[in-house]
Amino acid sequence: MTNAHMIWPDKVTICEVGLRDGLQNEKKILNIEEKLQLLDSVVESGIKIIEIGSFVHPKAILQMADTEEVARRMKRVNGVEYRALVPNLKGLEHAHASGITKAKLTVSVSKSHCINNFNLPPLEMMKGFIPCAEYADKNNMKLSGAMSSAWGCAFEGKIPIQQIEEIVQKYLELGITELSLSDATGMANPRQVFEVGKYFIKTFPQVNWILHLHDTRGMAIGNIVAGLQAGFNAFDGAFAGLGGCPYIPGASGNISTEDVVHLLHEMGIDTGVDLEKAMNTARIAEKMIGHQGHSSVLRGGRCEDLTKEKAQYQNNKQLR
Amino acid sequence: MTNAHMIWPDKVTICEVGLRDGLQNEKKILNIEEKLQLLDSVVESGIKIIEIGSFVHPKAILQMADTEEVARRMKRVNGVEYRALVPNLKGLEHAHASGITKAKLTVSVSKSHCINNFNLPPLEMMKGFIPCAEYADKNNMKLSGAMSSAWGCAFEGKIPIQQIEEIVQKYLELGITELSLSDATGMANPRQVFEVGKYFIKTFPQVNWILHLHDTRGMAIGNIVAGLQAGFNAFDGAFAGLGGCPYIPGASGNISTEDVVHLLHEMGIDTGVDLEKAMNTARIAEKMIGHQGHSSVLRGGRCEDLTKEKAQYQNNKQLR
Repeated sequence: MTNAHMIWPDKVTICEVGLRDGLQNEKKILNIEEKLQLLDSVVESGIKIIEIGSFVHPKAILQMADTEEVARRMKRVNGVEYRALVPNLKGLEHAHASGITKAKLTVSVSKSHCINNFNLPPLEMMKGFIPCAEYADKNNMKLSGAMSSAWGCAFEGKIPIQQIEEIVQKYLELGITELSLSDATGMANPRQVFEVGKYFIKTFPQVNWILHLHDTRGMAIGNIVAGLQAGFNAFDGAFAGLGGCPYIPGASGNISTEDVVHLLHEMGIDTGVDLEKAMNTARIAEKMIGHQGHSSVLRGGRCEDLTKEKAQYQNNKQLR
Repeated sequence: MTNAHMIWPDKVTICEVGLRDGLQNEKKILNIEEKLQLLDSVVESGIKIIEIGSFVHPKAILQMADTEEVARRMKRVNGVEYRALVPNLKGLEHAHASGITKAKLTVSVSKSHCINNFNLPPLEMMKGFIPCAEYADKNNMKLSGAMSSAWGCAFEGKIPIQQIEEIVQKYLELGITELSLSDATGMANPRQVFEVGKYFIKTFPQVNWILHLHDTRGMAIGNIVAGLQAGFNAFDGAFAGLGGCPYIPGASGNISTEDVVHLLHEMGIDTGVDLEKAMNTARIAEKMIGHQGHSSVLRGGRCEDLTKEKAQYQNNKQLR
């Protein structure tokens, strides 16, 4: 026995990012009707925070080219937050024009990664967020801040905490207090998630922290467990576990929403999500994109499905 | 932040059960040369406890029909424990005759499951283990005791701790102090693994506990994390994550050895296993059975593969 002490929250929040991070690497471009159907299905499952797309240049990511139309045409249900990713002020203006009230900015905490993608180091890039914060303030929009490569970078490996903390400070200076630590490459491990997560949650209690995990190397569910211990109570997920890197055939993508919901429910933790309906969203998404994602409960079934099947089997046996 | 306190061991033991639990449901029957090649590869990777097969009736599980021949022909490397599953005294005698010195008995802690499979409730079935314990004692063999359905049963759902504890007591009365808590249906969840695991490890400190996990519902890696906190320091795994139920297409099987090794190494926990070689075993196994298993690191790659690829990419870019 160890002296370890695990603590479980009563309730956590699930943020559905399938329409953005799940779909953006898919070859098959979904049409607007399909996206609206998926969005309705997500809302129907009880998820209250939904990332609907990304206001990038239409040529940059074809799958995201109709985000403005999604935003204009979607049903808006009270109590649901419809969040969109914006790369810069222009994106934010488009988001606002289409009725979006919550936007997510994103920067890589890795200098090499940030320079590679945006030709600017992180703090330089964040200077562009100043007019975004002003615009959001004037237009009554809320902002969220994402930090990619927070758990490891393909170029730099693990990123020192101090380097991440500089970005956190910068976001806070901009008045942004909802921050996500993102692991798009699936490099986070549970020990790190506990230690680093606990440090940030302790140091910045005013922040609403979101943990954004990918399951590329099979560590994501372990990271959820460690993340709960660190004190995270909001997790991004994508229906059907979509969002794998297009250059790694067969690799997993975002952690699957329905797997996280199933895990948490099995542990007696409330998510407010109807698992059956979340699984249905994932099935619809797989059908639309034309291939399977990476969802354990879609393939293996829920615990309760197993007990139901066995009961059925026993009943049939008795009837014979 | 929470008051949770996570503790990580310096070193854990990996037991490879791919040759038994991994292969036993595979349609393609491997020949003896293939099995010996797999076994050599497992030993080569540094794994010190290997379940080589099962001494059941040859007609019961065709894939296991040549376990005796495997045992007779395998190279025996000093310091490696070659364990075999035996259902009863007859199996134990066959194991002994072929030079096996460590055998694993198994019983389901679920009455319904045990009666369904063996027509006897658990404690009645364990009466048959008394002559096994006597035989092992006389013949200088070591015994291990497995408890299936320990984390949940398709017929009965969660099994009360007291019911499991009766089985533990019975094994201890037989002088068996290596015990595994098995989750063949993938129903264990991390909260349960921590609470129940901690109870047993605290109550029976004289036992060498082994945690046997399946990833059917995507919870296994979370259960490893919780298991480490409970104080487990030995885990079964199967190369390539083989061992899915033949009636659930696409469902995961045993937790993949190489995924566990990768996870632990990323967390700075020593396993004594060469991950590259363990991945090689998994690749060989997939080739032999003719389909992919369920291995995240085989598909998504290790963290270090990613950094290497990026370095290569950067180098190539500079050369252009």
